[in-house]
Amino acid sequence: MRFSDSFVTTLRDAPKDAETVNHKLLVRAGFVRQLMAGVYTYLPLGQRVLNKISQVVREEMDAIGGKEVLMPLMHPKENWVKTGGWDKIDVLFHVKSRTDKEYALAQSHEEVVTPLTKEFIRTYKDLPLSIYHIQWKFRDELRSKSGILRGREFLMKDLYSWHLTQEDFEEFYKKAKEAYLKVFKRLGLTAKVTEASGGGFSEKISYEFEVLTSAGEANILYCSKCDWCVNIDDIDKYKEGDKCPSCKDDVLKHSLASEVGNVFDLGQKYTKAFDFKVQNEKGEMVYPIMGCYGIGITRTMGVIVEKFHDEKGIVWPKEVAPFDMHLVGLNGKGEELYNKLKENNIDVLFDDRDVPAGQKFADADLIGIPVRLVVSDKTGEKIEYKKRTSDETKLIDFEELIKMP
Amino acid sequence: MRFSDSFVTTLRDAPKDAETVNHKLLVRAGFVRQLMAGVYTYLPLGQRVLNKISQVVREEMDAIGGKEVLMPLMHPKENWVKTGGWDKIDVLFHVKSRTDKEYALAQSHEEVVTPLTKEFIRTYKDLPLSIYHIQWKFRDELRSKSGILRGREFLMKDLYSWHLTQEDFEEFYKKAKEAYLKVFKRLGLTAKVTEASGGGFSEKISYEFEVLTSAGEANILYCSKCDWCVNIDDIDKYKEGDKCPSCKDDVLKHSLASEVGNVFDLGQKYTKAFDFKVQNEKGEMVYPIMGCYGIGITRTMGVIVEKFHDEKGIVWPKEVAPFDMHLVGLNGKGEELYNKLKENNIDVLFDDRDVPAGQKFADADLIGIPVRLVVSDKTGEKIEYKKRTSDETKLIDFEELIKMP
Repeated sequence: MRFSDSFVTTLRDAPKDAETVNHKLLVRAGFVRQLMAGVYTYLPLGQRVLNKISQVVREEMDAIGGKEVLMPLMHPKENWVKTGGWDKIDVLFHVKSRTDKEYALAQSHEEVVTPLTKEFIRTYKDLPLSIYHIQWKFRDELRSKSGILRGREFLMKDLYSWHLTQEDFEEFYKKAKEAYLKVFKRLGLTAKVTEASGGGFSEKISYEFEVLTSAGEANILYCSKCDWCVNIDDIDKYKEGDKCPSCKDDVLKHSLASEVGNVFDLGQKYTKAFDFKVQNEKGEMVYPIMGCYGIGITRTMGVIVEKFHDEKGIVWPKEVAPFDMHLVGLNGKGEELYNKLKENNIDVLFDDRDVPAGQKFADADLIGIPVRLVVSDKTGEKIEYKKRTSDETKLIDFEELIKMP
Repeated sequence: MRFSDSFVTTLRDAPKDAETVNHKLLVRAGFVRQLMAGVYTYLPLGQRVLNKISQVVREEMDAIGGKEVLMPLMHPKENWVKTGGWDKIDVLFHVKSRTDKEYALAQSHEEVVTPLTKEFIRTYKDLPLSIYHIQWKFRDELRSKSGILRGREFLMKDLYSWHLTQEDFEEFYKKAKEAYLKVFKRLGLTAKVTEASGGGFSEKISYEFEVLTSAGEANILYCSKCDWCVNIDDIDKYKEGDKCPSCKDDVLKHSLASEVGNVFDLGQKYTKAFDFKVQNEKGEMVYPIMGCYGIGITRTMGVIVEKFHDEKGIVWPKEVAPFDMHLVGLNGKGEELYNKLKENNIDVLFDDRDVPAGQKFADADLIGIPVRLVVSDKTGEKIEYKKRTSDETKLIDFEELIKMP
């Protein structure tokens, strides 16, 4: 993409109402614009990042056998009345048609996916089954000031699974947990798995995938010697300085953290609500156990910015960067290299704008693509190469460049 | 994909409330399920078709310089009040938050895209500009019984353009028209461009892209000797049998048709509503001319089924088929061929289910993938090849198969 052909301009100052780093930097660098609190437009750079995160998530969900579908955003009231969510969930948006029919706006999709799969699943032989989609969600949040970390409208991957037994659910949960840790690793994040209560979904224990960041909204205690971690907003029997209850090798430390994913053991709550039974090996009709596994796509994008930035701007991890390379053309140079990079299937943002060199360099740092290339009168036949994470530049030729990791 | 691994089953009978061919066949063949009138879930096969249609549209929009973004679904009431749409558009869904804030659900995106681009566009040098997204829309339809042809919730590509002059708009419209005709041709459709009134958007003439089909909701008159075509639901000065007003070489014929795309000349309605001015060459501040160009993605999928089916099922055009080939394995055969096809990057649905051959053949016809392959004890080392559009089968070997067009 040519920068000159993009309609977006970067900003020197963040919007006055921006309180969080992700909000400030994503707006300044031209990835998003806020339409209203908690509701954002994704500009071309932002849309690319969302697609990259979605694709990583999709690949790992496919790898554990998840089947991708696309479920609606507007749901019949009856389905939400059946599960009690219509009256109990305060963040559920209600919509009324001009003929006074009432609908819910998707806040989650149990109320749609359960009756959907009920049609297809008859016996234990059809289980386990897991289905997911990447789709928008709506939450009537009272306060929504954390940029894209907590939206009134946000993109989410939600996977649902059905099992004959609790043991089968636990087994699938282990696979899903590994898939989640793989997703976050590919996205450049280290997630901690915490225990938390099931919230509105379930009385059972649930798991949250938390990334340590000072912009986070959750209070967690974690052990640095082992994987043990707990969300103390939900479970208050532990405190900072306690001995780790798992490895007993270190004391628990406190951190703010941001939830990027979660898993709920839904038990038979939804299968009972929709009278969804399957035949077991003995010919008896039983309610399957159900699990729900979410990853916030837009939220994860925000968390990545909170984690990876410096005073100059965003520092995207390679796998989610909007482009592989950022080519700064000076003295009218760069056309030839731009075309050669595209021919080699390298996704490149070419800054061919007629603006001062200083502005181009500042924007490259602000936007945060992992590799910056410069061609100018000074570089001659060579290309100046610099990583966003380093101050070191080197002059290389094209053959070296395309062999770079 | 393995059929045995898909949770979806085909149905012998269509749902009782299904009135249209697309609704009947898409449900029977396992592409969609209706959640409520006008609101559908897209199952794995359906989701694949939506992605294929979206990708064709995306490529052609990119080719005319459209920049892809992603705009929100929930809009502030103020924006819709500014343009008059809040009170005037009867299909606009209103949503109220628990603190009594009011929002509109996206019925179109002029109210969001106009203030968005206003921030970036300052002078005539920034024009023309065109921006699009592929995003869900909501319409409070009183009746929604045409399957996915007219949804209360539907997926749409909407592109918006801004121009300094009417002439520049007309020039861009010509490019967009050609891009649209290319899109529909790639999707296997022949679209007619009709004149219609601008509906709620504009008092100016607009253009509709119509596909002739008996399931259509629009009444059109067209000339078979030239491109002339008119929507007589909107413009009533022509009647069947009249001489073609353009080529005068034939008489006008009547047909039902389905709208798959449209273009509106919005004039300065929205730029004025949002006080969006640009500086022209003389230094004067003027309101740009705006155009809007839609293609219904879900609707187009329905129109394709209305056009391409026979008594046995759907007959997908190659470019939008959920898979390239449908492999029927009999007598436990097919594993080796399935893997070889995947290695050759051929997208294949492998019917490895333990069901009678007759059911596999019937499902292949119902689902409608362009090429059916059979391997069985009878075919030996060869592969039986049959096109969905033909009754002729032939025995070929793998080398011949992968060279097939």
